[in-house]
Amino acid sequence: MIDSFKYPDTKAYEYVVAALAAKGVTYKEIAKITYELQQQFLPDIELKEYEEATIDVMHKRELLNNVMVSLYLDKMATEHKLDEPLQSIVAHDAGVFGVDETLALQIANIYGSIGVTNYGHVDRVKPGIIGKLDRDRDSVNTFIDDVVGGIAAAVAGKLAHKYS
Amino acid sequence: MIDSFKYPDTKAYEYVVAALAAKGVTYKEIAKITYELQQQFLPDIELKEYEEATIDVMHKRELLNNVMVSLYLDKMATEHKLDEPLQSIVAHDAGVFGVDETLALQIANIYGSIGVTNYGHVDRVKPGIIGKLDRDRDSVNTFIDDVVGGIAAAVAGKLAHKYS
Amino acid sequence: MIDSFKYPDTKAYEYVVAALAAKGVTYKEIAKITYELQQQFLPDIELKEYEEATIDVMHKRELLNNVMVSLYLDKMATEHKLDEPLQSIVAHDAGVFGVDETLALQIANIYGSIGVTNYGHVDRVKPGIIGKLDRDRDSVNTFIDDVVGGIAAAVAGKLAHKYS
Amino acid sequence: MIDSFKYPDTKAYEYVVAALAAKGVTYKEIAKITYELQQQFLPDIELKEYEEATIDVMHKRELLNNVMVSLYLDKMATEHKLDEPLQSIVAHDAGVFGVDETLALQIANIYGSIGVTNYGHVDRVKPGIIGKLDRDRDSVNTFIDDVVGGIAAAVAGKLAHKYS
Repeated sequence: MIDSFKYPDTKAYEYVVAALAAKGVTYKEIAKITYELQQQFLPDIELKEYEEATIDVMHKRELLNNVMVSLYLDKMATEHKLDEPLQSIVAHDAGVFGVDETLALQIANIYGSIGVTNYGHVDRVKPGIIGKLDRDRDSVNTFIDDVVGGIAAAVAGKLAHKYS
Repeated sequence: MIDSFKYPDTKAYEYVVAALAAKGVTYKEIAKITYELQQQFLPDIELKEYEEATIDVMHKRELLNNVMVSLYLDKMATEHKLDEPLQSIVAHDAGVFGVDETLALQIANIYGSIGVTNYGHVDRVKPGIIGKLDRDRDSVNTFIDDVVGGIAAAVAGKLAHKYS
Repeated sequence: MIDSFKYPDTKAYEYVVAALAAKGVTYKEIAKITYELQQQFLPDIELKEYEEATIDVMHKRELLNNVMVSLYLDKMATEHKLDEPLQSIVAHDAGVFGVDETLALQIANIYGSIGVTNYGHVDRVKPGIIGKLDRDRDSVNTFIDDVVGGIAAAVAGKLAHKYS
Repeated sequence: MIDSFKYPDTKAYEYVVAALAAKGVTYKEIAKITYELQQQFLPDIELKEYEEATIDVMHKRELLNNVMVSLYLDKMATEHKLDEPLQSIVAHDAGVFGVDETLALQIANIYGSIGVTNYGHVDRVKPGIIGKLDRDRDSVNTFIDDVVGGIAAAVAGKLAHKYS
């Protein structure tokens, strides 16, 4: 750790934005999920502020690290390059796998445990782009739907703390 | 820890069952929540099995510890005995408090991270007895609704693992 | 949640500072733990900066909430006011209780999972004020040593992220 | 999830045992770490029982899932096949990366939060095979040392609960 390695935050952010965009996910789509989730609790806050909060949250290093790993695993699974039996498990998006949820949870928890309940709800209801990813059969999307839910939940946590 | 203290698991279980019953919560109510949550994924499993799994899960020491602390804090808050500002925060059930969710999450996680998403969903939708507790204005129920959701989610995790 | 309740952050901070001081714990004691823990990795950072980071971290709402609950439970246990068997369990500081560690972990995790390993280490080695609290037999200190370790670990996480 | 997919637990176990063995890690090495960690608290328990507990814990599905992902990521990093900047981050074993610790923590937590402190301590002190992996420069071992620490910590949690 006593090391001259400079953490590549900017490159990580650019990688994540590009990799999400390649799957049709932008900060706007994520902000929309949180907006619809939180509107009833924060009636005066406009979509614009959710979008700004989403961009802000997406710069957090903890988020970027968990997202990079998640998207890489989906990519390898789509290319059938994971080792067995991990390949079959991820390809089937088995509900008891849990690693996807563990990584998303760590994202959701960045602004405290309020993010956790929002993540769990979103993961179950699959609103907006999450549902679209879940129904897509052209590639393995085992991790990305959780990641998007985790980010949306973190944004919810950030705004809930700001307006309390 | 090099200690002759024998962990009082049976007493803890009896305390939890009695304290929950005093709030109108039985294992049957909790099992019903999980049953309705999971029925679509496990169409062949009958309510009876959910009830047995709930009793089983409620004997877990990790669960009992988190539930005892939670119920005690609700009781003290109802009697206005918490210190300020904790008293006001718990009495208002402020969404950004988070300690209630942290304890419930530790319960939900007993059977792995699949419990987490079920907990988050249940915490948001507030089915059955959870909604009833949430609407009750005679006592502070800040922790108990999360606790019940956490137990229901742990049961969901247990059965999901069993049938996978 | 659609509620005019204004979160009492300042009062919570003042409560926590006063309650810790009553147990002989100040931000300086906590900063010293982190300093000794991290010095080998960050040789150029002086104690002063650890102290400033500790004050900063201690204003985090998530931290304050978990600390308030923890200190309240120690106080009630010292006054023999917890319900049985919770009273006996907390008074014995049973290693398998785990609620103290769950709350401390949520504090340690504020700056990401790097805090977790620091917390676990500190909880085992019990440096400085933590060891003193652990050996004190005049009051129940089941939660406070974990809380102090959790804060020290969060400070370690904050500085590790800053200098990476 | 309404799916005929049968979870490949046996294959997962065999994969994990073989992949660990290829790195010089056996259940005996892991048991030894826990034995040395816990001996002072459990003076009457012999190494044999730690070994049996380790084999038992290593059959847990939650553990297998997190270990499979971890070992796969180390392998890809060793082969320079991760995308940038993930490749550089993992190859440098940057302390603030955190995904390795998140996965290990989920393993350590299988037997409750007592595992967490044991994991944090082991991750810092790096006893036995963990230190050897950490010093090995022939391959990337960013995840495996955390994984081994997480398993050792879970075993500690299991035995602590058994003898309390």
